[in-house]
Amino acid sequence: VDAAAEAAARDRNGQLTKPPGALGRLEDLAIWYAGWRGNARPALERPQVIVFAGNHGVTARGVSAFPAEVTVQMVANFRAGGAAINQLSKAFGAEMSVHELDLDRPTADFSVGPAMSEAEVVAALATGWAAVNPEADLLVVGEMGIGNTTAAAAIACALFGGQPGEWTGRGTGVDDHGLSIKTQVVAEGLAANPDRDPLEVLRCLGGREIAAMAGAIACAHARRIPVILDGFICSAAAATLALSAEGAIDHCVAGHASAEAAHRALLSKLGKQPLLELGLRLGEGSGAALAIGVLKGAIACHSGMATFAEAGVSDS
Amino acid sequence: VDAAAEAAARDRNGQLTKPPGALGRLEDLAIWYAGWRGNARPALERPQVIVFAGNHGVTARGVSAFPAEVTVQMVANFRAGGAAINQLSKAFGAEMSVHELDLDRPTADFSVGPAMSEAEVVAALATGWAAVNPEADLLVVGEMGIGNTTAAAAIACALFGGQPGEWTGRGTGVDDHGLSIKTQVVAEGLAANPDRDPLEVLRCLGGREIAAMAGAIACAHARRIPVILDGFICSAAAATLALSAEGAIDHCVAGHASAEAAHRALLSKLGKQPLLELGLRLGEGSGAALAIGVLKGAIACHSGMATFAEAGVSDS
Repeated sequence: VDAAAEAAARDRNGQLTKPPGALGRLEDLAIWYAGWRGNARPALERPQVIVFAGNHGVTARGVSAFPAEVTVQMVANFRAGGAAINQLSKAFGAEMSVHELDLDRPTADFSVGPAMSEAEVVAALATGWAAVNPEADLLVVGEMGIGNTTAAAAIACALFGGQPGEWTGRGTGVDDHGLSIKTQVVAEGLAANPDRDPLEVLRCLGGREIAAMAGAIACAHARRIPVILDGFICSAAAATLALSAEGAIDHCVAGHASAEAAHRALLSKLGKQPLLELGLRLGEGSGAALAIGVLKGAIACHSGMATFAEAGVSDS
Repeated sequence: VDAAAEAAARDRNGQLTKPPGALGRLEDLAIWYAGWRGNARPALERPQVIVFAGNHGVTARGVSAFPAEVTVQMVANFRAGGAAINQLSKAFGAEMSVHELDLDRPTADFSVGPAMSEAEVVAALATGWAAVNPEADLLVVGEMGIGNTTAAAAIACALFGGQPGEWTGRGTGVDDHGLSIKTQVVAEGLAANPDRDPLEVLRCLGGREIAAMAGAIACAHARRIPVILDGFICSAAAATLALSAEGAIDHCVAGHASAEAAHRALLSKLGKQPLLELGLRLGEGSGAALAIGVLKGAIACHSGMATFAEAGVSDS
């Protein structure tokens, strides 16, 4: 963070034509964004949305309400412009791209051993890193991968402890029977992969699209591109970074709290307060993309408003 | 509401390429909007933001942290494009206008008698009604009026009962002493104006800008233009309509819950769940304008997404 830009932004905020604090969290957001961009009066003009897609060997265990073929079908839908994230990216002026990661070669079933080899996880991290547009001034990473709430639950449980049932939810909509299988699979995965080093957790319990999200978020940190986190899966990817290095996700805000049961608990572990709580549970980056509007509004106010002196308004 | 359009929109929503309910409140919002617009696949293209400004005799009692001159100074700031609402209107593509209502002739001090005559409240309602652009497809009404959280607290207390202290908050930021004066003024106003007919409450305890907001909201109902409600003062204006006629604010959603203490309670009385909760307490229509983004996102998804059949995606 550029401390001088952040301080200058804070000073500017205090002079704008409004009672102190009257824009609530928008004020903190704008100051945070200014610090990361190194500009006390920044603009938000080039948001980027990247959707990563991966397949999961664990789907063979019956953890999802949808068949694994839906991953590749939805990738085609993203390319054709028909998914929710296409509409949201367009609505908020974001450049959007889709990266599928070896869809014909699902990860290994993590309930019996590591999901990925070291070479595989490194390749996925690198795909994520390379997907970030260096010219972007805001990043949203989303995902598509039938079975990936199971992987995210296993990651969260491995990183933060607790019982598998506390982290396992209904995903796209499994019934009670499906939920009990899913919880059992998470428990087996934790037993089969005992290493709790955060990046080992990512390799053993994650998936290619989850690793790619982590790679993109890490790249954004290096390039000082602020990130809006999406839902449970995105937050699990971010958590592997957060536990790997101090401050690794300070450039991230939580776009929303999803309806996936454990997302709120995960955000709380990450110290992030969601911007939106509208019951979304779609993934694709949809909740984060919706929050681009909030950030745009915050920055528009911060950088566009007149000061008391400029407007000739009494400040008390 | 156009029940056929609403039903067709609900049917369409069920066919879109997402698990059922995965877009959460965005789905309900889009269906609601479709019903009011009479179009199962609507667009949101012409949002309108109107800011009404009025002055309040009750400011002489010391109820605000800012002097009454700030109302006219802020109107100049709106016209010059320097206020928060200017930036938010621009960010979300809304046409914005400002209407000042007899700023050099404040309402009478309601703590001793009616704030307005019948002619005055009717003129203000008519100003609001006439300000709505018939071509708009979404309306946000905001306000500027030093002293108007005091008026809104008195309205809410008159309409819904309870103690003045439950409805009176810090507004732009009064200290404890100011808050006790404000609460006392609300109590005196309720005693001096005993009629509890909703429109009499508006006349006796409201202000010109509050009546204008009510007039604009009523006009939008007649024209089937959906409305996003802003904060405490806007909600108090809407409440006078809600209690006057069944369904009078069914075309309204609550844009946000403001930091003004009693706003959440007021929304609860109106049966409205806020879209955003970001601690705003600025007025001007700012919270509602920010929520335009949420509605835009909802409608973009609803009307732009492919169906399972169109995209060739397995729906289970």
